[in-house]
This record gives sequence, C-alpha cells and structure tokens, in this order.
Amino acid sequence: MRIPQSRSFALFLLCLLACPSAPAAPLAIVNGTVIDGTGSAPQKNAVIVIEGQRIAAVGPAGKVAVPDGAQVIDAKGKFLIPGLMDANVHLFGSIGDLALLYKYEGRYDELILEAAQIALKTGQTTVYDTWGPREPLVKARNRINAGDAVGSRIFLAGNIIGFDGPWTTDFIPDVGALVTSTFVAGINEMWQQGVGRELMWLGPDEVATKVRDYATKDIDFLKYGASGHAQMFFISFSPRVQKAIVDVGHEAGMTVQAHTSSLESLDMAIDAGLDIATHCDMTGPSTLMPDETIRKLVDKGIACSVLPITQARMDALEKLQPNGLITPYMRTSHQNISKLIAAGVTLLLSTDAGILSNDSESHFARLLGSVDVDPSTKLGEGHFNALVGLEEKGMAPMEVLKSATSNIAKAYQHGDEFGTLEAGKLADVVILDKDPLKSARNYRSIHTVIKAGQRVDRDALPLVPIVSADWAKE
Amino acid sequence: MRIPQSRSFALFLLCLLACPSAPAAPLAIVNGTVIDGTGSAPQKNAVIVIEGQRIAAVGPAGKVAVPDGAQVIDAKGKFLIPGLMDANVHLFGSIGDLALLYKYEGRYDELILEAAQIALKTGQTTVYDTWGPREPLVKARNRINAGDAVGSRIFLAGNIIGFDGPWTTDFIPDVGALVTSTFVAGINEMWQQGVGRELMWLGPDEVATKVRDYATKDIDFLKYGASGHAQMFFISFSPRVQKAIVDVGHEAGMTVQAHTSSLESLDMAIDAGLDIATHCDMTGPSTLMPDETIRKLVDKGIACSVLPITQARMDALEKLQPNGLITPYMRTSHQNISKLIAAGVTLLLSTDAGILSNDSESHFARLLGSVDVDPSTKLGEGHFNALVGLEEKGMAPMEVLKSATSNIAKAYQHGDEFGTLEAGKLADVVILDKDPLKSARNYRSIHTVIKAGQRVDRDALPLVPIVSADWAKE
Amino acid sequence: MRIPQSRSFALFLLCLLACPSAPAAPLAIVNGTVIDGTGSAPQKNAVIVIEGQRIAAVGPAGKVAVPDGAQVIDAKGKFLIPGLMDANVHLFGSIGDLALLYKYEGRYDELILEAAQIALKTGQTTVYDTWGPREPLVKARNRINAGDAVGSRIFLAGNIIGFDGPWTTDFIPDVGALVTSTFVAGINEMWQQGVGRELMWLGPDEVATKVRDYATKDIDFLKYGASGHAQMFFISFSPRVQKAIVDVGHEAGMTVQAHTSSLESLDMAIDAGLDIATHCDMTGPSTLMPDETIRKLVDKGIACSVLPITQARMDALEKLQPNGLITPYMRTSHQNISKLIAAGVTLLLSTDAGILSNDSESHFARLLGSVDVDPSTKLGEGHFNALVGLEEKGMAPMEVLKSATSNIAKAYQHGDEFGTLEAGKLADVVILDKDPLKSARNYRSIHTVIKAGQRVDRDALPLVPIVSADWAKE
Amino acid sequence: MRIPQSRSFALFLLCLLACPSAPAAPLAIVNGTVIDGTGSAPQKNAVIVIEGQRIAAVGPAGKVAVPDGAQVIDAKGKFLIPGLMDANVHLFGSIGDLALLYKYEGRYDELILEAAQIALKTGQTTVYDTWGPREPLVKARNRINAGDAVGSRIFLAGNIIGFDGPWTTDFIPDVGALVTSTFVAGINEMWQQGVGRELMWLGPDEVATKVRDYATKDIDFLKYGASGHAQMFFISFSPRVQKAIVDVGHEAGMTVQAHTSSLESLDMAIDAGLDIATHCDMTGPSTLMPDETIRKLVDKGIACSVLPITQARMDALEKLQPNGLITPYMRTSHQNISKLIAAGVTLLLSTDAGILSNDSESHFARLLGSVDVDPSTKLGEGHFNALVGLEEKGMAPMEVLKSATSNIAKAYQHGDEFGTLEAGKLADVVILDKDPLKSARNYRSIHTVIKAGQRVDRDALPLVPIVSADWAKE
Repeated sequence: MRIPQSRSFALFLLCLLACPSAPAAPLAIVNGTVIDGTGSAPQKNAVIVIEGQRIAAVGPAGKVAVPDGAQVIDAKGKFLIPGLMDANVHLFGSIGDLALLYKYEGRYDELILEAAQIALKTGQTTVYDTWGPREPLVKARNRINAGDAVGSRIFLAGNIIGFDGPWTTDFIPDVGALVTSTFVAGINEMWQQGVGRELMWLGPDEVATKVRDYATKDIDFLKYGASGHAQMFFISFSPRVQKAIVDVGHEAGMTVQAHTSSLESLDMAIDAGLDIATHCDMTGPSTLMPDETIRKLVDKGIACSVLPITQARMDALEKLQPNGLITPYMRTSHQNISKLIAAGVTLLLSTDAGILSNDSESHFARLLGSVDVDPSTKLGEGHFNALVGLEEKGMAPMEVLKSATSNIAKAYQHGDEFGTLEAGKLADVVILDKDPLKSARNYRSIHTVIKAGQRVDRDALPLVPIVSADWAKE
Repeated sequence: MRIPQSRSFALFLLCLLACPSAPAAPLAIVNGTVIDGTGSAPQKNAVIVIEGQRIAAVGPAGKVAVPDGAQVIDAKGKFLIPGLMDANVHLFGSIGDLALLYKYEGRYDELILEAAQIALKTGQTTVYDTWGPREPLVKARNRINAGDAVGSRIFLAGNIIGFDGPWTTDFIPDVGALVTSTFVAGINEMWQQGVGRELMWLGPDEVATKVRDYATKDIDFLKYGASGHAQMFFISFSPRVQKAIVDVGHEAGMTVQAHTSSLESLDMAIDAGLDIATHCDMTGPSTLMPDETIRKLVDKGIACSVLPITQARMDALEKLQPNGLITPYMRTSHQNISKLIAAGVTLLLSTDAGILSNDSESHFARLLGSVDVDPSTKLGEGHFNALVGLEEKGMAPMEVLKSATSNIAKAYQHGDEFGTLEAGKLADVVILDKDPLKSARNYRSIHTVIKAGQRVDRDALPLVPIVSADWAKE
Repeated sequence: MRIPQSRSFALFLLCLLACPSAPAAPLAIVNGTVIDGTGSAPQKNAVIVIEGQRIAAVGPAGKVAVPDGAQVIDAKGKFLIPGLMDANVHLFGSIGDLALLYKYEGRYDELILEAAQIALKTGQTTVYDTWGPREPLVKARNRINAGDAVGSRIFLAGNIIGFDGPWTTDFIPDVGALVTSTFVAGINEMWQQGVGRELMWLGPDEVATKVRDYATKDIDFLKYGASGHAQMFFISFSPRVQKAIVDVGHEAGMTVQAHTSSLESLDMAIDAGLDIATHCDMTGPSTLMPDETIRKLVDKGIACSVLPITQARMDALEKLQPNGLITPYMRTSHQNISKLIAAGVTLLLSTDAGILSNDSESHFARLLGSVDVDPSTKLGEGHFNALVGLEEKGMAPMEVLKSATSNIAKAYQHGDEFGTLEAGKLADVVILDKDPLKSARNYRSIHTVIKAGQRVDRDALPLVPIVSADWAKE
Repeated sequence: MRIPQSRSFALFLLCLLACPSAPAAPLAIVNGTVIDGTGSAPQKNAVIVIEGQRIAAVGPAGKVAVPDGAQVIDAKGKFLIPGLMDANVHLFGSIGDLALLYKYEGRYDELILEAAQIALKTGQTTVYDTWGPREPLVKARNRINAGDAVGSRIFLAGNIIGFDGPWTTDFIPDVGALVTSTFVAGINEMWQQGVGRELMWLGPDEVATKVRDYATKDIDFLKYGASGHAQMFFISFSPRVQKAIVDVGHEAGMTVQAHTSSLESLDMAIDAGLDIATHCDMTGPSTLMPDETIRKLVDKGIACSVLPITQARMDALEKLQPNGLITPYMRTSHQNISKLIAAGVTLLLSTDAGILSNDSESHFARLLGSVDVDPSTKLGEGHFNALVGLEEKGMAPMEVLKSATSNIAKAYQHGDEFGTLEAGKLADVVILDKDPLKSARNYRSIHTVIKAGQRVDRDALPLVPIVSADWAKE
C-alpha cells in the first residue's frame, strides 16, 4: 500500500520544482565507480549526469554521454554512493545545556541549522529528526528545504506522542531550584505540543482526536512512545490506543514509528501496525530478542532503526563503565543487532545523534558515566562509527550501504525521491576516496558531497559555529 | 466455571474439620432480625442455630427450634448480619515506620496479628490482604486459620506481581542515607519474592514460569500490576503477558486480580480475563470511566473492589488539600463509584487499610497532605466509612451489605463457605444494635461478633497492642 | 584620625576637575526651602548657586545673588535636600537569575548600570555597593564616575572578605545538576577574588598579605565577614585576624566595615576597630542588642548601617510568614533599631537593595517565603520605605534625613565632598514637592534630581531596561 | 593551681573506699619489668603489691616483700605498665546506626557498656568520653564506677557546648524522610541538653548561666566547641564567651577542653585558658601549625589530645582516597604531630573511637570514603595504632607510654589517683608479653589487665555483644 504523503512533504516536492537554487549548467561525474544503493553491483568507470536537482542519467562511460557545457567532476579512483542518511537524529541536542537554552531563547532554529550543517558536511544529505522542539525544527527544516539555508534535508516528528518534555521525569527530572517554573514550563511546552503524558490517561477516541490535531502541525511523520523513556520497561499505551495512533498517522499520509525499549513494548507496537520500530535492538538490560519476535519483523516487513556501536566502544564500556547506566542496555543491543542482521531484518542506520558543546559534553559524561571511544551519539561522528559497527556485526558491505541510504528512504516512504543513484532521483551523491565496500571505515573518506545537484562547500560548514564553536579542529 | 481451590484454602477447609476450638454446646441467637446477605428480605424474630463452627439452621422463631442445652443469645431489637469483610487490605501497614521495622525485625507477623485483631474487633471476620510481606503474612494467617491465634480470617496475595518492594521507586524511592543497603534489600525482598519489576522485561513464557513458581509459595490468590504504582498511567504488562499470568493463576486454582490505576490498564486487564478489578474506580486525575468500560464489567461479571470515601472526607480534601497528591484521584473515584452503582456492577468494599502508629500517622499526613475526616485507610475505621460512602453515592441498603459480605466471598470463590447467614455456612455473625438498612452508619453499632461459631471477646483485642499502643481510647 | 583616601577615590576626585561634562552656565535654584543635611534648621526662600559640578553658594534670597546668565529653577513651595544615599546596596542583584547570568555573560556591567540608573532616578546620587562581582562593578563605576555613563555615583567593596561566591554554601548551595562546574566556578570566582573562605584557615599575617593584595584591586573600601552569611551565628575570624584586616584597610586609606549577624560577631568587630558595622541591627532570631553593646557603639563613634522596614511590612511578615526564614531576624532588627535610635547611635540608611526581574522575584518569593508589602530590598523602592521605617521607630525628622545623606558620607570619609548642601560640595541636590520633615513619606515626592551639577533626565532612566524591562509601569 | 574536683569525681573517690568489690587477699606481681609511667627507667625483676584497689608497694624484688597469703602473678619476661587510657573517645558510636538507635531505644547505656568492656579488654582501664548522650553515659559510668558493671573507668563531658545534636547540620544533616520528627528531636535532645547551638546567639553572661546549669548535670568535665564541627573553619564563640565558659568550668572544679579544628580556633581557645586542646593537630586541609602557636602550648603547659594515625594508614589514604573527605585534614594532622613531638608539647593519646556494627561500618565507609588499613577510630583497635603512629613520628618510647597513661591522668587532674604505677595509686596495671619500649607494636601483646586491683576476665568481654556481635573472631 502506498500511503499518501504528508502536507509538508508535498510542499517539499513543490519546492523541488520551483525553488531557484539549482545550477544552470548540467553536472557530470565521470570515471568513478558507482555503487547506486539499490544493491546492484558496483559499476566501474561510470558516468552520472545531473540536471538541475535530479539525476538525469547513470551508466557506463560508453553509454551515458556527458552533455555539452556540463561541469565535469573527475572521480577517477573514487566511489560514488547515494547521500548518507540517518533514520533517527535529535538535531537539537542541548536539552541539558542551560547556557544555550538561555542565550538562544527564541532562536533555537539556529542551533538546529548548525547541526544540520554538520550532518551535511559529513555526508548526510537527509536526516530524520525523531524527537525535538517542533517549532524551531519546522523553521529550520523549512529554511533548508526551501533553499534558504544550507543543511541536511530534514524530516521531523516533533514530540514522541505520550512523552512529556525534556525537563520532566521522562528525561531530566530535576533542573535545580534556580530555573524558574516559567522557564521550565516554556521548555517543556516546546516539546509536548498537546501530545504529552496526559494522553496516557485517555481512551482511544480521545487520543485519536489529540493526535489528529497534532498531525496538522506541519510535522512529517508520527512517532509515539510504545514504552516509557526513563521508565524503560513500562508500556505507555494499550493496544487499542496504539492502533488508534497508527491509524491516525496513516490516514494523514504519514509513516508511524514507535519508541520501544523493552521486548513487550516492541511486540505490542508490531501488532499495532507500525512502519518503523525505533531502536528495536533495545530490549532491556538482560533480555535478548527472541526468534519469534525477529520472525514477526521479517514477516511484516517492518524496518528497524538500530543503534550499533563499535566493538571498541563496547569493550571500553565493559572495561570503564561496567556499572554505567547504559552499559547493560548496549550489551544486549550489541547482541540483538547481530541476530537481526543474521535474520535479514531491514535495518536502518540510526544514532540518536545531536551536538553538544565541549563543556556540556564533559559535564554529562561525568553525570552519566560514558566513555570517549568511537562516540555513538555525536552528530557528524556517530554515523561513521555505526556503519563500522554494523559491518563488525556481520552485515554484508552492500547491506551496510543500504542501511544508511535506500533502506531509510524506503522505510520513510521517500524511496521514489532519493536514496539511490538512479535517473529521476534527487541528485544526493557522496564521492568517497576509498571503497566503502572494502571497509566501512572508508565512509569517512569523503571527497565531495552533492545535495540535490548542488556541491556542498564542506569547509565552510557549519556557517556559524555556536554549539560546536570550541570543538577541537581536526 | 468453578475454579479449583488453592492448596492453602484446602488446608483451611481441613482445619475446619479437625481444629478443636469450636464450643461443645450449640449456640442459638434468638429474637433478632436476620439480614442474611443473600439479598432476601430481613426476617424479624428469627433464630440462628450454630453447631460447631457452622450454622445449623436459620429461620423464623416458629420453624427453627433452639436445641436442648444450647447457649442462647437474646437479640431482641437487634440485627444479625454476616461477618463483614474487606476485599482489599494491607495488614502490614508499616512500610514507612522505621521504628517498627527495626524493632520488630523477624517478628512482623506480630504486627499483622495485631491488625487482624483490630479488624475482627470491628466486625470483620474475613479480610483479603492484597499486598504485603509474604512470609510474615503466611505465618500470621496460618496461626489464625489454625486456631492458634485470634484474628480476622486472612487470605493473602503477597506481592503484586510486577511491583518492586516498598523501598523502591514503586513506593518510597528514598529512605535516606542512614538506612543501610543491606536492610533496604532485606525489606524489599520480603515483598518481591521473585515476581518484582524484573518480570516486565520478560516475554510471556518466562513470566509464566516465574509466576507458576510463585503460586506454590503458600499464597491464596494472585494479584498482578496491570499498571504501575507510583507511575499510575503506565501499563506494566503486554496483553499476552497478562493473559499468561491470569492463566497460571486459574490453573493453580486461584482467583486473579489486577491493580489498575488508569482507564486503559483496566481495559487491558478486563480483556486478560481477570476475576477482580482492584480499585477499578481509580481511572486517573481527570478521566471518568466511560460507559463502554462499565458495560464490559457488567457483561463479563467482573467484580470491582472500590475505595469509597464519605462525602465529608471528599469535601475536606477539596477544601484543605485541593492540590494534595491524592485529591484529584479521589475526585474521579468518587464520581466513578456513583456510575458503577447505577450500572449495577458487582462492587466489593475495599479500603487499602492498614494500621499506623500515631507518630507515623502524623508524620505521613504532613508528608503527603491528607485530611483527618472520616479516615478511609485506617484499619478498623475505614470499612465503616466506606459503607457510608457507598450509601451516600446511591447504593441500595441491601447492596451495601452485600458489598461487604456475600459479594466479596463470591468474587474470591469462597461463597460456599461463608458470606451469608445460611445453614451449612461458617457461622460468621455480627449482631448490631441498630438497623444497618436504615443507615449505613449503624454498622458501627456492633454488639457481638461471632467468628466460625465462636464469640469474640472484643474488649480484649488487640491482645498485644504494639502499633496501636498509643491510639486514643474510645 | 583622618585616614588617607583610596586610589580609586583619588581618581574620582581627579575626574571632578578634568571630566568635561559640567554645564557651561551656572545654575540657580531659587524660592525653595533648603534643608542642607547638616542638621541646621530649614532655610525658607533660599538660593543655591551651582557652578560646574559644585555648589558655589547657598543662602537666603537676599544674601546670595543669582549670577548673570544663570539657568534658574524656580523651587517655590518645594524643598531642597542633599542627594540621597544608600550605605549598603548590591547593584548586581541577579545571583539567582540564571537567564540573566547566561544571557549577559561578560556584560554584567550593563545590568549594574541599569541598577545605578534606577537608583539615580529615585533620588540616590551615591550608593555604596558592599558585595558584588568586582570586575563588572569596577567597570560600571568607572564609566559613571568618569562621566561616560549616567547613574548613581558608586563606591564598591567587591567581595566580603571571608565569603565564598554566590553559588556556595554561603549563599545558594545547590544550583542544580545542569549548571556545569565550569560555569559555577566562573561565577564564584567573580566574587571571591582571592579573599574567600580559604582565608578562615589562615593566621593573621597570611590573611593580611591576601587582603593587602586585594586592596590594590581597584576597590573603594573593605568589608569583611565578622560572621558567616548562611551560618549566621558563626564567627568567621579570630580577633587578631580581624585586627589585621582592619589595619590593612586603614593603611590602604580605606574605611573598613564588617558583616555581622550575631551579637558576639558585632562585639568582636567593634573591638577590632571597624568604621562601619553593617546591619548591626541583625543580632539573631531572638537576641536583642544589650545596652552595653549600644554604649560601645556610641563611645567609639562607630556608624551602624541598619535595615529598617516599615511597620506595615513587619505586620505582614508576622501575619503571612510567621515561620518565614527571615521573619524572626527582622523582628529583633525592628526592636534593635528603636533602641539604637533612642541611644543616639549614628545610623546609616541601608537596604541590601538590588533589582530582580519579575519572574525571578516571584520565583524567589515562593522559595523563601516573603511578603509583598513595602518592599525593603528592591532598589528604587527600598530606601523610601526604610526612611519611613526610621521615622516610625521614633527617629527625629532631621536625623532621618542625615541617615540617608551626611551620616553616610561622613562614615565613608566622603563628607568633605558631598552629603550636605554647602558651598564647595558637589552639587547633589534633590528637589521635593513636599516637606520631608513633615513626613518621611514625602521623600517620594521627587521633582528634580541634580547630580554633580547636572539635572537628571529621570524619565529616560533606565536607558536600557533589561532586568526591569517588565516591571509594571508606575 | 589545683582546681577542686567535680561532684561526680568525689563520688567516684567515695566509692573507692566503700565499694565492696576489691579482693580480700593481697595480690603480688613478681619477676617482671616495671615501667611505671613516671618516666623513670624500667625496673627489672620488680615487685608490685596490690592491696584492695590500690598499689601498696612497688620496688625491686629485694626491697619489696610479697605479703603473706598474697596471690602471686609470675611476670617473668613480661612488662608491667599503667593501665592504658584514651583522652578522647565516643563510646556511643552509633549515631548513624538506625537499627541500634531504634532497637535499643531507652537502653543506650547497654551499648555504652559494651564499648567500655571492649576498651577494658584491650588494656584501657580509663577512658574520657568527650561527646555523647549524657544520660545513658552517666548511667553506664555510674554502674561501672560503682562496681555494678565491668568496663573501663569512664569520665564524661556529655555534649560539646555549642554543638547541636547528631542529626543536625553539625553532624548528619539529613536522616531521610522516614525518620519522624519526634524521633529526630528525641535523639538530638539526648546530646544537646540545653547547651546546643542556641548558645552562639548569646552574650557571655547568658552563656555562663546556661553552662553553670549544665555543669550540675552529673558530668565530669567540660568541653566546648571553639570551632564548628561540620563547618570546621568557623569559630563558635567570641573570646569573652569562651572565657566565661572556661571560668564556669573551673569554678565547678572541672577541667575544660575545647574542640578546635582550625588554627585560629585553637589560638583563641588557648587564650581563653583551656586545659586541654582536643585534636589540636587538626588545623585544616592545608594549614600547618606555626611555631608561634606551638610555643604558646608549651609555655602555658596546655595538653594536646592528638589523633595520630600510622604511616600505613596515611599512605593508604593518599593512594585510595586522595580526594576523600578527611584525607587532607589527616595529612596536616600527620605533619603537625611530628612538629608537636619535636617541640615537646604534652600530648595525650586520643582516638575519637567508638564501635560500629559491620553493616554500619561498611555503609559509612562507602558514604565517607575511608580505608581499611590500621583503623584509627575503632574502639579496641585505634589506640594500638595511635601508639604506633606516635612512635613512627619520632616520639621517644617512654613519652609514647606517658601519652597514653600519666599525661592523660595529669591533664584531667586525676594524676593523684591513677596513671602511674606508684604506691598509693589505684592498681590499674597492664602486663605485656613484649617490651613496649622496644616497639610500640608490643602494646598489643597484652597478657593481663588489672583494674583497681581486680584481674579482668578479658575472654569474657564484652559480656553481651550487641554492636560487636558479628565482628570477626580474632
């Protein structure tokens, strides 16, 4: 079933026609090896022709001609892949950074733009923001998607239905006596948007009404909490309420995903008919995913966004933070992902990534007990490490590529527009110096990023460093 | 379907035959008005003959003869009703009373005995303890039911499946830096008994295994958490896990009830096949129970234990603690009960009652914000006020009586043994000075309590006042 | 003994000669009643002639001529008094206002300027800041005193020697988990400046060395903690250390004052030779100042800055916050001030005043339990109420005026420069519509403020409202 | 000046005459080496004759005859020293052990007796309890000193004047929400006894009145807080108040000591005329005691009770708890003691020792961060380690012995009664297997303990193990 697209996506498509930012001359990338993201074998010495925002042709050097007057990129010895994606980011990563929250009050979209630019700089042409402050996200997304600002293409969910805001028992319960209740309420409201915890008290019809209203608020897809966030083993909604949420999403032409953090919450969400199971690999501190559940995912063709970490990070957690808050959960996640790969579940690369200032980073590292090895949730870093993590866990190289490109596009119902290097698709291309199929570490060897036909000036990004201002220069 | 009885109940029945405590001579109560708890009209000038532990005959003075040599109680002007019951008590009420927890370490059964004697003194011949420390409860129950100690007849659930112990985030999260971790762990383990929160991470088969094991631990019935305790709107178990728990209970010959504290958790528990919905009236701070759910309760014949408070108490809460922790929940409960009465749902009087020392009482009153009017959870008081509460909400006088007698016995599958004043039943009789059908306040006018044929020396109870030592003398 | 003046004060005097801001033409105020602050009787129909920054002549209309070309202010029916002062303000009032602390990081001097302008607008031509962040205070003071910015003339102490910064157990011990340790340390360091709590571990010589160094840091006078701040009854320094601090201050040509909050800390500070006893009226929650101590103050000619509140505020505290944190201390202060007035101790009007945003104000009112009647510590309000408070406690009207003018100037060794309306003094003049000697409430009837010969555009102040932006318009 | 003795001491002396517990037959210890505690050289092959509670004669085998019928102890190869003492213990060590505080409510004297018996078992015939619950201490002391119970001879101070009870900000500020305010108040009152923190608000006359009253409450000596306990660098009392306290003590015939925890608080206490400076070695986390202060101690002949730890413990603290709460303070104490020894200050062995259950011990070790090496505050262990600590820091062997015997007796004005092995003194004798002058480790080689002429059955102590019940058997 092809579900109808959301209003925001329709606007996005419209912009593709009307927005004036595409280059006048065609662009041809020649001599490179194309790995198109469909799963087809790499094509050596291939040509990609880009006209406007889209790919006009892809094929062997002999068969595809370089148009007259085309700007030509010589990709000899290089590898062309679709623009990378992340199925699960949180561009606004600063929910605990009081300095930014106060200083940029009313301008959080600027922090989001910065994040979207760091994502783009590191090869991610599209990101799916699955939890964040709706209004600033909408503002940043609209500016980028309208061509008014540079950055990763953004699709967003806003709140996770059923979750309260960041300064509540769902996330950070105690922000201290000095933060006034006015400010706390304001922050929380930016997230909650009428679909917070209060929905858990309601029956299916009332929840449907609330979610239906929320779906009109310029968001791209729906995400609901199948389980609690801080209370990971609790289930948030009854089957009938979950079904109501999924149905409302589908009626509104949106994909629907669920936050699940326990085996049973995953199982219920599957039964409710969700499209994407977000971090389905998180089944608890000691519970592995049983075969039966894996079979369900395969049978129903449900995509799973997973949070793979590298073996080096896992080893560091085991050694340095054996009793850390998150260590046991990563331990089971680590094993679950191997099982999911072996079973052929459609996996989507996902990181929960956002950006933090150095001061906040070290502050929270102290509070939460984490390690410094192969960061998993740092935007611009996490996806590279996650790709390695998938490879280490036994995923075939071509599948690793798809997990970060076409799988994501398809799962979000955007497969017709991007996700592969095929004629007619938006020209999101990453040119690598080294072969990503030889080693997932080669995804870091980015030579050029092209988004919708435009070459990205990576050195200039982020245009206005705020959060990342004091990051060590590479 | 008559479900088979639990092992402990079988032992209880056995004791009824063998235990040597019944009086030698028959007992006859004459001249009183019998309200037998079946719903039949009161019989004036009736005779009840008790032989051993059971009622030998009930009927009009003319038809039922007083046996030769019988001991005779003249109940002229008085009213005879079945022994009162409470569907939901917590005899061990001292989970926050450090003084008692330390001083009576290893002797908590003595505190439970005291509570059971206060219950009996105030007309309650049978109580169902739905959450408490299993081992001391078993010890107290066995002593009473074996005739070795005086007190209300006890049936017990032990832990609520899925709940962690009293000194966890389910109840009291922070007991202070001075309570050693050894002591905390010991207290919690007395409750958890292998069926705590860790079950929420598991699938149905594993949960079933754990619960099956728990069912062998000398408990009388099963209670599971359909929702969280402190986290009232969360759901604890998936439908398939709830069903597994219910099935295990029924296989073991036990009734199964669920703690529900939100509309959806109630709805799921109903679907799981539970026998008793515990405080089904608690649907949240502002959500009233919809007609559809009430219909389900009626259609499936599910009994609801409810927590009725008096109008005076509700008024005091509204006035003195409008923002108190529990006030909004009592507000909806108050309204829900009226709806449940009107719809004819089978209601069971229930109080959550336990006993507290004066010092603890005032300590917690300060902490939680409660009021002093018509106490609802004070054992020995709460049931009298709850009876008034039901009457005030429109329940017919005869139904009020049944809610505290035969309804409870039937719901717990003990209707063949007690709950009514009928020949063959255990002789649990309360003689009142005033007519309870005229006013529910008359339940307080207790003249005599007879349990299993034996007159209770009410003045002597509790035999060893510990918790209640400094209660004001009436 | 005339102690030599501090370097900063010398610079201030220098500026009086060189700074180019004085008006070209002389200014004459005619027809008004002059109350010159010396204690002399009011002169009706007097003339004040101002040339440049100073008063050229004061006298009866017949004796003092209005110079040719002079700008003339007709003060018929009005009252001329010296510019008001406050012996104890904290212009930077925002130590708990995270929003401002973050948003104005590096620009705290702007918040201080705003405060100094609110002070000036309400008639205060000079204020003594006795605790605050040294560097921004110096910056604001220098800008004002150099004529680069408008505002009350400022003299400052920086830190109170022996106190740690605002986010320590001396003031706000817990600022919450989200404020990074880097930021906390930065804030505290702005106050501590090398003379924090660590001095309490040291002997007199080492303390003297630290304080000597501190005295070079562009401050105007010294203040040390004779007692703790949050720990009010503790004594901070031994007699020999206190003497060392006082001596260092005097050597550096500075007045020395002490924070005292208990009877014994006051007594020790007196013995140490201090010049000003700051809020000497604060002797504890129930201890009144004994006659012996009062005699000592009189005999040694020590000035006391006191914190008088109105009777209406005292009554409100007694009624609304009888158990409030500060109520018992205000109760004894209230009584002590009456005793001090009766004994003729030299009193200095003092308020502890600063400015807070509305949101912070209500936030802290909730936290601390205060009342809304006749605010005592709100800059721009507090001094008016304090004047009334003194009058209510029996102080003679002329003494009330001196407590807010000449007494303060003299106590701070600035009596030669300002504080009275005498020829040669800086022309700090406040013109009132109503007679302040008739009622202290008349100090509010400000018609014109002149500071160092320049008329203040009161309506324009504060020039850039930040903290006060949302204060209700009067 | 010989100050008059306290009433309690007078009773103690009276008991020495009247109390019937002394053995009928004289006791003679022969063949051993006597080190009499006066500083005289050891006497080999000496005889000690004990008659009743006192030493009748001491001298060389030839000169002192063994009385007829005397019971004879052959001490060949052994060493006889005066009974050991501790100048500073806290026999009631359980202020954080809720289990004991609740279970033994009203019977704390039993816990104190246990401690006194552990002290006696380990060679300590006299201990000075310098902070504890007055009434139970008095009860235990009286039973022991009257001969009704076995244990170390006890002298006690009760509260430290100016300190609040154990469950206040002076010690443990937060005991958790579950401890009722009634219980908290009761515990604190057991210590405060009218001389708590409230005295800090008062002037000298009022304090004198309070202390005079306290001195009548059956205590043996006075101790006041010259500095705060938790707030170590604060000073508690002004010079004139300190002098008032000292004078009251001396008038009452008591020695007066002060708790000092900073250099300046020590200096002030010296000036106030105190007799004993308690843990004068604690001068702060980084401040060493200056020569000038040491000179003052020597010149005025003030005794210092110190808290010496072994080098091994110091090394362990440095390694395992470099940032532990107490590590920096022990670091300076460690160095100060070496300086005090070198300067010849009269030092008194002192430990702050008490006893804790294993569970409490490990609980607090976790909370406070301590180490397990050579415990310093464990009663029965600490004094042995402290003796080694003094030796390691360079104290002469004979001085080490005096620090734990005659120095203490003299400092507390009890030198006429005990502290040395001289004729006429109470017969407190410890017989060691090894020579304590060769190594302080040899104090552990206790063979026999005799207190007031009676041999102690060490194996039987403590008679009723409560706190120590689960200590590992040696």
